[in-house]
Parts: sequence; structure tokens; C-alpha cells
Amino acid sequence: MHPFDPRRPVVAEIFVTPLGTGESTIREYVRAILPLVRASGLSHQLTAMGTLVEGPLDEVLALVRALHTATFDAHDGTDRVVTHVRIDERRGEPLSLEGKVRGALGLRPDQIRNASGQGPDTGND
Amino acid sequence: MHPFDPRRPVVAEIFVTPLGTGESTIREYVRAILPLVRASGLSHQLTAMGTLVEGPLDEVLALVRALHTATFDAHDGTDRVVTHVRIDERRGEPLSLEGKVRGALGLRPDQIRNASGQGPDTGND
Amino acid sequence: MHPFDPRRPVVAEIFVTPLGTGESTIREYVRAILPLVRASGLSHQLTAMGTLVEGPLDEVLALVRALHTATFDAHDGTDRVVTHVRIDERRGEPLSLEGKVRGALGLRPDQIRNASGQGPDTGND
Amino acid sequence: MHPFDPRRPVVAEIFVTPLGTGESTIREYVRAILPLVRASGLSHQLTAMGTLVEGPLDEVLALVRALHTATFDAHDGTDRVVTHVRIDERRGEPLSLEGKVRGALGLRPDQIRNASGQGPDTGND
Repeated sequence: MHPFDPRRPVVAEIFVTPLGTGESTIREYVRAILPLVRASGLSHQLTAMGTLVEGPLDEVLALVRALHTATFDAHDGTDRVVTHVRIDERRGEPLSLEGKVRGALGLRPDQIRNASGQGPDTGND
Repeated sequence: MHPFDPRRPVVAEIFVTPLGTGESTIREYVRAILPLVRASGLSHQLTAMGTLVEGPLDEVLALVRALHTATFDAHDGTDRVVTHVRIDERRGEPLSLEGKVRGALGLRPDQIRNASGQGPDTGND
Repeated sequence: MHPFDPRRPVVAEIFVTPLGTGESTIREYVRAILPLVRASGLSHQLTAMGTLVEGPLDEVLALVRALHTATFDAHDGTDRVVTHVRIDERRGEPLSLEGKVRGALGLRPDQIRNASGQGPDTGND
Repeated sequence: MHPFDPRRPVVAEIFVTPLGTGESTIREYVRAILPLVRASGLSHQLTAMGTLVEGPLDEVLALVRALHTATFDAHDGTDRVVTHVRIDERRGEPLSLEGKVRGALGLRPDQIRNASGQGPDTGND
């Protein structure tokens, strides 16, 4: 009914965990790989528990690969990295970072635009 | 060195997934259980991929239990629910929702306070 | 239709991640907390990516709390622990560790019993 | 110290969740996409909570993409799929499905080989 479309945006959460670093903070690793998120050109949002991105599946997976690989050499380096990804895709009416939050809150597009700084969409979730 | 303290705040991500609902949206389920998050009294933030909370471990686990159980009877109801939880706790300098984002962005407390509407903390991550 | 039953078994995956340990292995931490899994009395299975358990929701959450808390003091100790939990519960016909695998493989109960060493169930998934 | 090697095996957990299917079972979806796992040629293990695979990062990500995309058209079809992936990679001494379990259990290679049907490795975790 809704055929495969490689340009359809998905919403995803990505987070990397460097292990064995000798420090209980990992912010320096996150900070070091953030430029890769920005360079991807994908809409994104940094949260306390990961990075949310919105874009075509292949671009999201390419970013996952880039972030995972770069973490080994980030900051002081590490020999072990665990990377988590969760991809949410809906055919028909695609999902968006803003629409998912607005849908769950029961808001109209104009009620969240100022807060998030993103443009309007169709209110999916 | 840092003994167990049941009041130490942890940061957690929680999300529930009702299965077999017959609709590709789940926003009505999320909306129906949000009052439980608010009633918990925990600091929280709704994102496109889940709900972030901050508070003592036992209160977070009690909320997980409440959200999981309530989802079966939310909206049109469902017979199957998958609930994910990720708990991040640091002894010594506890983590916070705001501090984790600020630490990763390399910001001072006053640089994020306006955006998040939360009070200052010590910039941990 | 299927009311709340605190004894209904759920199936869950739990894994703990100690951060900042200075070593790229975490097996010593996993080994140190395994006795808590066994002491829980829950059916369980150790996999390469976590521990699977089957039992009532409250017992699973109590085990999550115990494993998370114990990891700080396991092996050489650590100041930061991230714990993940995924809970899968079905009302009506409850899920089981064995039944989920068998259902996905399309096997009859007697075709998997020898391999897993568990008794028969109704082939749910 | 351990440079990037695209052939280094990683260990990963993958699971797909079709939403809105109208049934509280998803086994038919899992069964429909299992041939893709087998066709990948990667070492794999089906558990009650997902599929574990072992192989080069790029092959794992290609499998993730294939499984995610195929789930929309599996069984009765669905318009929404959530796919989770967790990738664990260690440079130096690579991880393996068998080695991770054996390391956590404190076993020698010959103590687990029969159970898992896999060959010997170096006992990493």
C-alpha cells in the first residue's frame, strides 16, 4: 500500500557508550562526536539520554556507523564502544521529531513551534 | 567510597509500546498515561522517543511499573505491552537531566537555563 | 478483558553497564552479580547481550533494582552504572522465554524442550 | 593503537517491532524475516528478546536495514516498524557471541562448545 521510499524520513535515537575509559563522565566523548551529527545535515536534538535524529534511513544508518567508529578515537580514546539505535518509521504519514512530541501532548502545530524552533508538520505520532 | 543513598537522583528514559492495537499511531496511549508521569512528582521531559525522568531510583521504578500496567487499559486497550527503561546513575556527583545536556554541549549553567526552564546544577555528565 | 494479575509472568531482558572502569572487559562485573539472578528464583538465561528472565513483574523489577545497585560495588567497583530493562508482557496467554523462541521458529513444544531444558508451554509469542 | 578494521567482528542484538498489527503476537513477522538473517551468512542466535549476530559492522548494519525494511511487508504487513540495534565492538581482542557468554560464566572454551555448537575462541568479554 505504501511502497518503499528511500527518502521517507524516519525518527531515531542514537547513543554511544565508551567502556573502560577510567572516568565516570562521558561528556567529552559525546562532545567530540557532535560535529559528525551536525555535519550529517539531519535534523537533530541532543537530550540527556541520547541524540534524536530525523531523516532518510540510509543517512541515519550512515551516521550510526560514523558515530560508533569515531568514538574509539574520541577524547582519550577507548578500545570498546557500545552503540544503541532505535529507528521508528511510519509509512503513509511519516513521523517527525516535532510531530511525535506534539501528538503525544495533543497540541496544534502552532503550540509547539516556538518551543522547539522547528517548522510545522502534520502532527503525526 | 560513595555508599548507597536511596535519595540520590538517577536519570532515566522510559517508553512503552502497546502492540497489536490495530492503529499505527500510539499517541493516544502516551497521552493517556502522561498524567501518571506528572503525578509522580519527578522532573520529566517528553521527547520524540520517550519520556526522560529524574529522581530517586525507587520512585523511577515505581513509575515504570505504573506506566507499564496502565498502558494495557489506556485508550482502546491492548493485550500486550513492551516497556523499555534505561537508568543512568552516578555516585559522587549525581546526574541531572539538564546537567547531562549542558555537559555534552560544553555550556555553563546560565547558558541553558532559559531554554530548559530548569534551575542551575553543577554541569555533570 | 484480562484484568491485572500480579502473578502473571513477564519476559524481560536486563543488562548493566559499568562505566569508567578502566578496563574494556566487564565480564567480572557480570560474574559478580550473577548470584543475584540465581537467588531471585526467576527462570533466566544468560546471553551474549544480557540476561533474560521470566517471572512476575514485581519480582523482575526487584531484580533490576538489586542488579543495578550491586554493580557499583562489584569487582573493582565503579561510580557509574547504566542499567537497561525491556519488559514484554502479554495478558490472556502469558509469554515465556521458551515459548517466544519456539513461536518464532515455528516449532512444537517437543522440538525445543531438549535444547532449552525447560518444560512445555503453549507456544506463545 | 588498534586502528579501524572493517573486518573486525562486532556482536549485536537486533529486534524489530511491528506496530498496529491488530494481533498481540508478532511471531509471524519474526518468522518471515528470519530467512534474511540466515542469508546474511552472519553467526546468529535467536533469543526470546531478539536476534544476536556476530560479524563485520557493515554487514550487521546492512542486515539491520534489510530486516527493518522487510518487516513492513512481512506476514499481514504493517505501516509502522520500530527497530532496535545494540552494537558491541572491542578493538584489540574482538568480541564473539560465544566468548561473551563464556567470559561472564567463567568457563573455559571446551566447557561451552558443545552447548553452543560453535568453535573455540579466546574467551573475551
